[in-house]
Amino acid sequence: MLQNIRVVLVNTSHPGNIGGAARAMKNMGLSRLVLVQPLDFPAADARARASGADDVLDAAVVVETLEQALAGCSLAIGTSARERSIPWPLLDPRECAGKAVERAAGGEEIALVFGREHAGLTNDELQRCHFHVHIPSNPDFSSLNLAAAVQVLAYEVRMAWLAVQGEPSKAVKDDACELATLDEMERFYDHLEQTLVGIGFLDPEKPKHLMARLRRLYGRSSVERTEMSILRGILTETQKVARGEPHKKKD
Amino acid sequence: MLQNIRVVLVNTSHPGNIGGAARAMKNMGLSRLVLVQPLDFPAADARARASGADDVLDAAVVVETLEQALAGCSLAIGTSARERSIPWPLLDPRECAGKAVERAAGGEEIALVFGREHAGLTNDELQRCHFHVHIPSNPDFSSLNLAAAVQVLAYEVRMAWLAVQGEPSKAVKDDACELATLDEMERFYDHLEQTLVGIGFLDPEKPKHLMARLRRLYGRSSVERTEMSILRGILTETQKVARGEPHKKKD
Repeated sequence: MLQNIRVVLVNTSHPGNIGGAARAMKNMGLSRLVLVQPLDFPAADARARASGADDVLDAAVVVETLEQALAGCSLAIGTSARERSIPWPLLDPRECAGKAVERAAGGEEIALVFGREHAGLTNDELQRCHFHVHIPSNPDFSSLNLAAAVQVLAYEVRMAWLAVQGEPSKAVKDDACELATLDEMERFYDHLEQTLVGIGFLDPEKPKHLMARLRRLYGRSSVERTEMSILRGILTETQKVARGEPHKKKD
Repeated sequence: MLQNIRVVLVNTSHPGNIGGAARAMKNMGLSRLVLVQPLDFPAADARARASGADDVLDAAVVVETLEQALAGCSLAIGTSARERSIPWPLLDPRECAGKAVERAAGGEEIALVFGREHAGLTNDELQRCHFHVHIPSNPDFSSLNLAAAVQVLAYEVRMAWLAVQGEPSKAVKDDACELATLDEMERFYDHLEQTLVGIGFLDPEKPKHLMARLRRLYGRSSVERTEMSILRGILTETQKVARGEPHKKKD
């Protein structure tokens, strides 16, 4: 489905940015790059910054006009740094990605269109896009590097894509982490209390709020079974030491 | 509030990436950059890629160790590319930003920690972080450019920050709960380790993953200052007992 989403770069000046964009795309699982009149491409700088995304550069299509770049697309979303004289349907990157992924999943061809490093897209180019997307930024320093802008949108596309895969977006769920049950926690608190009395830290006649404070700490930590065994092991060794029994220390 | 969030780059090789990171930060409204042993900084390449974010570079703090970089922080989140032998609490960039912004709003100091271009963060460095964050990526081409990774997290921080603007601040924390800082946590881990060696629970020649597991447990618990004093008190008493010194026990 991600192969239905193309990235279109218009009139890019610096080949390094083309390479950076290719790398960001491949990192996020996008592969189709279209270049409208790049100033300098192919170029060594592009390859260097692509840092292994050579396949994306090799497959990049170079065209003369935005119209050619958008051929076959039924949805084009153009990046826009600033408010335009004509108000246009404006998305944030998350909405943009949601829309792109939803419609790509339906078999449509989608284009994400990025403008020139300094001047962005012209009004005419923006008006060829169905929607505009604006990356929220510091009003005093709002112009993102081109490859960084591609990175942000490609990242949101991947997040949206993962969400519809039904996959967790996290790489690893710690399912190894079975939690200690409430009764295991109670046995731990008993053991802890006895140990603290044993080492003389807790005075059973003046317990104050000590156990309550410790319950609060461990209670909110979602202690796992393996962690519980470690904590219980520490208590057992401490008790041996407190009773003057031989313990494992070698010295 | 965004000024409570610092970006820490560890052992960066290419000054261009430092500049790219500074630009991405400033675009998203972040300003505090800390560099741990950068290979080449200050450098012309950093300034070129910063593309106007000179103030961020000029204010960047260069330090020798990650510990120094994290001074004063009560939450550190480290970027991690791969699964680790010990599963650590793992966030996606959105969850990471939500947590960072929520806690920065409560007045805490937060660090987002990024590793070396090729090797990332070491296990030891990752274990100093409370959480890990993984940027979802193409499993066949998963290594993002460093500045691009900073861009993604800084973007999510801005999105999270925008979402809480205008909302009534949930930041009014029960201010009794001042959290232990990272350096206090480090002193606690040292003390814990010595104590475990003292009672014979930890064999310094075969430490296995014991300290890592304990760091993971206490690291995710947001230990408060008052709780820290209790834990330290327990360790001090345990050490006395292990040394056979008279302790408070009355029997």
